[in-house]
Amino acid sequence: MNQIQSYINQHKDRFINELFELLKIPSISADSAYKNDLLKTAEAVKISLEKAGCDTVEICKTDGNPIVYGEKIIDSNLPTVLVYGHYDVQPADPLDLWDSPPFEPIIKKTDLHPDGAIFGRGSCDDKGQMYMHVKALEFMVKTNQLPCNVKFMIEGEEEVGSPNLAVFVKNNQEKLKNDVILISDTGMIANDIPSITTGLRGLSYVEVEVTGPNRDLHSGLYGGAVANPINILTKMIASLHDENNHITIPGFYDKVEELSKEERAEMAKAPFNLENYKKALDIEAVYGETGYTTNERNSIRPTLDVNGIWGGYTGEGAKTVIVSKAYAKISMRLVPHQDWIEITELFTKHFTNMAPEGVKVNVKPHHGGQGYVTPIDSIGYQAASKAYQDTFGKTPIPQRSGGSIPIVSLFEQELKSKTILMGFGLDSDAIHSPNEHFGVFNYLKGIETIPLFYKYFTELSK
Amino acid sequence: MNQIQSYINQHKDRFINELFELLKIPSISADSAYKNDLLKTAEAVKISLEKAGCDTVEICKTDGNPIVYGEKIIDSNLPTVLVYGHYDVQPADPLDLWDSPPFEPIIKKTDLHPDGAIFGRGSCDDKGQMYMHVKALEFMVKTNQLPCNVKFMIEGEEEVGSPNLAVFVKNNQEKLKNDVILISDTGMIANDIPSITTGLRGLSYVEVEVTGPNRDLHSGLYGGAVANPINILTKMIASLHDENNHITIPGFYDKVEELSKEERAEMAKAPFNLENYKKALDIEAVYGETGYTTNERNSIRPTLDVNGIWGGYTGEGAKTVIVSKAYAKISMRLVPHQDWIEITELFTKHFTNMAPEGVKVNVKPHHGGQGYVTPIDSIGYQAASKAYQDTFGKTPIPQRSGGSIPIVSLFEQELKSKTILMGFGLDSDAIHSPNEHFGVFNYLKGIETIPLFYKYFTELSK
Repeated sequence: MNQIQSYINQHKDRFINELFELLKIPSISADSAYKNDLLKTAEAVKISLEKAGCDTVEICKTDGNPIVYGEKIIDSNLPTVLVYGHYDVQPADPLDLWDSPPFEPIIKKTDLHPDGAIFGRGSCDDKGQMYMHVKALEFMVKTNQLPCNVKFMIEGEEEVGSPNLAVFVKNNQEKLKNDVILISDTGMIANDIPSITTGLRGLSYVEVEVTGPNRDLHSGLYGGAVANPINILTKMIASLHDENNHITIPGFYDKVEELSKEERAEMAKAPFNLENYKKALDIEAVYGETGYTTNERNSIRPTLDVNGIWGGYTGEGAKTVIVSKAYAKISMRLVPHQDWIEITELFTKHFTNMAPEGVKVNVKPHHGGQGYVTPIDSIGYQAASKAYQDTFGKTPIPQRSGGSIPIVSLFEQELKSKTILMGFGLDSDAIHSPNEHFGVFNYLKGIETIPLFYKYFTELSK
Repeated sequence: MNQIQSYINQHKDRFINELFELLKIPSISADSAYKNDLLKTAEAVKISLEKAGCDTVEICKTDGNPIVYGEKIIDSNLPTVLVYGHYDVQPADPLDLWDSPPFEPIIKKTDLHPDGAIFGRGSCDDKGQMYMHVKALEFMVKTNQLPCNVKFMIEGEEEVGSPNLAVFVKNNQEKLKNDVILISDTGMIANDIPSITTGLRGLSYVEVEVTGPNRDLHSGLYGGAVANPINILTKMIASLHDENNHITIPGFYDKVEELSKEERAEMAKAPFNLENYKKALDIEAVYGETGYTTNERNSIRPTLDVNGIWGGYTGEGAKTVIVSKAYAKISMRLVPHQDWIEITELFTKHFTNMAPEGVKVNVKPHHGGQGYVTPIDSIGYQAASKAYQDTFGKTPIPQRSGGSIPIVSLFEQELKSKTILMGFGLDSDAIHSPNEHFGVFNYLKGIETIPLFYKYFTELSK
């Protein structure tokens, strides 16, 4: 057992208990009712960074939830790692599908986590993964092994599209100056198949509203004679995909990066078992764009998904009504070169134009961000790869993720540095879903791997 | 001023105040939370019938909400009128669209009701219209002018499809024996254009559930690779109409009654102003089945409308989720000869069969009923027509309604008598919608007209 392993062994109960305290605060950024809990969480993150050894930590006000900034500068000639994470979490609903309350963390064993997993909203996304970095810093400081400078920027609005982070980054370029950005907000293939995320999809998130008559109507007296906004909304949404599940918005695919045969063949080598995938989701068949595999559909291809739909009577029993308004929340995952602002405009134009006479359509752009691809020959990637080799005994697989961390491309633009995505969660950890969890193995393995990244990055930078 | 007019004039404030007391009880049958309010309403109806002059009134238990039965038999050789109505109401949501609380009745003037209208859930459908009959009885009894026998059957489950009424009617055929059934639960064209409803549409109401993956998924990690139940549901619903807005369910139109050119020409004579219709609903165009006029679309043609849809994240802000389940409530209005049970089966089969691999579909039939047409040469219709002539000074127009009162065809089948639909509401009274109201003029005109129906029906029956 090496020094970091024995340090973790000695302190692991405390590491888990400290994370539990953080998970108990319902820091849901999408709902303004939790404003105070977000401030409490920011305060807790600040204290944890101070205790871990940061020299200065401050809570930086924004127009929304504050950003926690901390740093420990040991020598300005040494490289600087900027850690980014977020302390806000997704909404917890539907609450009735949680087996234990979302904000009362508990450890339970699962098939994929025989050593136990921490169940609770934010356990994996991103409080748990963010806190690995705090504990890795603690180890390096307490044992005098911090090999370089470190800065932390932990925000509270990632789950709502980071509306205030761009301004903060632009206004603090000198303060945030770094040689590499390190983020743990993605996943890896399996606990015995480590991987590093080399690509992210972009995102365009919109809300649409279809208005028919100016009031709810009796479906007997008016049924068949006026446009029913729900029927129209379903027709409009359905028409956004053709029979091959291609997206029909004109211009949508114009800038999509097409991978070469060789690149697709390389991707196909990643371990993937379709039967296990279907079984885990309890589905009889996968579904998606004709001509692409499941792994391609959820990483290198753009998508359009309805994330929420509502309108009319949804209570118990029956109500024979033609409602005045129907709504949907729709997100598009974008691939490199697609510009999220342009795509949002294309969507808005197309969706508005296709509305039949008799209804009014309103599209409200919500938020978005660009996709991202990182090269695997950079010092940062090489350092991360060596760290995983040491702790997992295997070279990690570079992998494109279907998820989005919109601010990654912003960082590259504003701070001129590359981001390394060292994620330790599993796809099955149910982030954004009921029963979100994070393996105890993964949490501790993250804490073990991160200091090695610092070591190798500093060495390779010389 | 004749005797009934002066009686109304003398008592109208009390008539309105008594109705207000009834409207204050939130007797929402679709929501079991209001169970107690339904019992309270039944009790209030019972007392009102006793006070109006019924000899016996009883609250009859059913498996659901009770039925209030009352009667006054003056001579078994005279004809018997059976009055049907309901004391339950539609749900009041969306509450925020009401200008005054739904269960705090208030009188306000409107363009179409310059004498004022009673605003409140159930004011028109059907507490107000039902209570006209109670007050008409009061007048006839107090002034010794009741010309025949009268029975009342007031139920508490009309808005949820009368699930227990059929059993009650079947088990009480002798008690309910009558010569004509009288119902005020429909409307008329305008306050200066009286009309009598001669046809009703049938109804099939179903709830559908589409299940994709066994849990909510992150739309980045799984987007594009698995069937999204909301996208699929919109596709399935959209496919239920073709480009001419014909319904695509195989066999759906097989038994639809096709009206002759002459019948359609007769219908087209009813006063209708398309510009006013569109203006009242604030829509730029009407919408519906190709080849039919607005008045045909909402009366002699069957329809399919989504009454409610829900799934995924519908709260404030954004959640990037692919949800496990999506739902819709769908109702079909049927025309004479379409059998609602057969149509429900055709829908279920079609909807289930069209589901793509990757989702599971469940169709839950909710309730339904057959359509109805009544001849205009019957004694009942003639008596009603003469009554309107007396009070409105105009021959009422026979009119097919798009609404459904499923129990009307049940009555014909079980009790072998025809129903006369003397409705005094207006289409613009917003029944089933926020701000439901019922004109004070209409309420009092109903009370004035009903005793004349009794008079003429008894005379014509001789």
